[in-house]
Amino acid sequence: MARAVVEEARDHVAALLGTRPRQVVFTSGGTEAVNTATWHAAHVRPGAPVVLADVEHSSARDASAAAGSVVHVPVDRTGRIDPAAVEDALQRCAASGTPAGLAHCQWANHEVATVQPVAEVVDTCRRRGVPVHVDACAAAGHVALALDDLGADLVSVSAHKLGGPPGIGALVVRRGLRLHALLVGGEQERARRAGLENVLGIVGFGAAAQALLTPGALGAEAADARRRTERILDIARGVEGVEVLGDPHLRLPHVVCVAVGGVEAEPVLLGLDQAGIAAHSGSSCASESLAPSPVLGAMGVDAERSLRLSVGWSTRDEDVDAFAVAFPRVVAQLRALRA
Amino acid sequence: MARAVVEEARDHVAALLGTRPRQVVFTSGGTEAVNTATWHAAHVRPGAPVVLADVEHSSARDASAAAGSVVHVPVDRTGRIDPAAVEDALQRCAASGTPAGLAHCQWANHEVATVQPVAEVVDTCRRRGVPVHVDACAAAGHVALALDDLGADLVSVSAHKLGGPPGIGALVVRRGLRLHALLVGGEQERARRAGLENVLGIVGFGAAAQALLTPGALGAEAADARRRTERILDIARGVEGVEVLGDPHLRLPHVVCVAVGGVEAEPVLLGLDQAGIAAHSGSSCASESLAPSPVLGAMGVDAERSLRLSVGWSTRDEDVDAFAVAFPRVVAQLRALRA
Repeated sequence: MARAVVEEARDHVAALLGTRPRQVVFTSGGTEAVNTATWHAAHVRPGAPVVLADVEHSSARDASAAAGSVVHVPVDRTGRIDPAAVEDALQRCAASGTPAGLAHCQWANHEVATVQPVAEVVDTCRRRGVPVHVDACAAAGHVALALDDLGADLVSVSAHKLGGPPGIGALVVRRGLRLHALLVGGEQERARRAGLENVLGIVGFGAAAQALLTPGALGAEAADARRRTERILDIARGVEGVEVLGDPHLRLPHVVCVAVGGVEAEPVLLGLDQAGIAAHSGSSCASESLAPSPVLGAMGVDAERSLRLSVGWSTRDEDVDAFAVAFPRVVAQLRALRA
Repeated sequence: MARAVVEEARDHVAALLGTRPRQVVFTSGGTEAVNTATWHAAHVRPGAPVVLADVEHSSARDASAAAGSVVHVPVDRTGRIDPAAVEDALQRCAASGTPAGLAHCQWANHEVATVQPVAEVVDTCRRRGVPVHVDACAAAGHVALALDDLGADLVSVSAHKLGGPPGIGALVVRRGLRLHALLVGGEQERARRAGLENVLGIVGFGAAAQALLTPGALGAEAADARRRTERILDIARGVEGVEVLGDPHLRLPHVVCVAVGGVEAEPVLLGLDQAGIAAHSGSSCASESLAPSPVLGAMGVDAERSLRLSVGWSTRDEDVDAFAVAFPRVVAQLRALRA
């Protein structure tokens, strides 16, 4: 029974991602998937540099730093990676005699929602024979992915970002790629990930994927999300000294990030919390860390004053109404205190 | 809310294991815990040999082999590790100029249930300044553990082995030991294991631990299990040509392993399955593998003919009655077919 429900879930996850079930390796989450992808590349080409932009998730940045040397790719002020900059980095590695062992390219940024030119970056890497890992954790379930068409070597996704439970994710492995497992000692997941399967988590991931596979569901949810985040942006822009971070158009539908001039993020979060609005400053995976966001740092933005606002399937228009009332009031109160 | 229930679960797991909550790092299971322990040691002393017996779980064997060189410790015919043999191995490593970076010692064997002289092995390692990892996955929840008294550097446990859900476990880290995380990119678990917490799994683990913390519960469950497995052994011994594997006395209460002369394990399993009895041949983590069990190989036992039988909190006396009827009949039928 457990085997049957796990494989049914794998079918749904694969269908959502546009790949075959056997390419899907369930992991304990996006972080393990990203670590596994990086570990695999370091195993195949030990000591080879890893090319990435500093807007990548901390798991890609930290796993790559742990694996060896990192070559940094710059981004523009919206956090967008320039495929030509990736090509340049790959070329420099090759010219120095140590070709890159891996390039990371997120599908979209997890803090400011900017969608990356992922197809171009994948093409660049494949042309130059460098394996490429795509972190699709922030994007999966919010925009349509067709991973078999993309052709990346490895793609990471996370269940809880698309309505599934926390603690489950997947690494999608390109057909023909023989993955070196990070967790060894068992033949589970076709010997690509040892350890008894998290059946509860996998079934939850499958159910969330299945819900998004209902014809029109993903598009309808994305349209609702975009309508609400557009309104959030309008409300935010209505307050003086508020700047929208990330690309306001080429972005994920459900996340927006703003910088509020003259006030710290922390008291804004507290004020919004009192109004029943759970917002965030920076990445949730960095929520225990006091360091400024490297994403905003890479974009050249003052990291102390960003506010990340997201909507989901449980968000109602009333929640956005509450934000419309609370946000201008909280910012005005804090500025009055400082004045 | 999620944070509160995770920390409540951590309290229960720590209490069951006889340690402090902050020593408990939740992982995706025993396999990840064992891999992390091995990775940590390889990170602290790169290239140092790892000392282990071949009766260790495949996760300890495979992770150690992946980390570098392995020094093998022999076991007796019951699968028991001799602390003097461990001492000898540590001494040989030191004498050769490359002191061991880690020694593994399971609390009890996962296939034949033999309890190891774990306190002696830990003492030996600590005396010689070699970090020691104890795989307590098979033992936790079935015998009383007092990990702070044991003094091992790292201890792995698995929830599903003690009534919790699959896909969750823990690595217990000795006070003062600074763990090098295997999964990086987030500050979760006090920066010792990155990735959003598997809240469902952790809560299930905590609930199972809490149930075992009811005064007398663990002892009563163990006594029931021992009574039933003693009966299983009596039934098995009643069939000619059946040999009990592992130590018949110094063993876990809930698992027994027998070798059936003259028949393969596979048709015995099928025959028992038809009678409603789910038995196993070898380790469940090796169930996808066709290779013979290295545990039985290390013990000098013919690996093709072992049968692992376990009881749990859901086992009833009627189940053992069914085994008493089915086992002699299945073995007799198979032997008649071969005759």
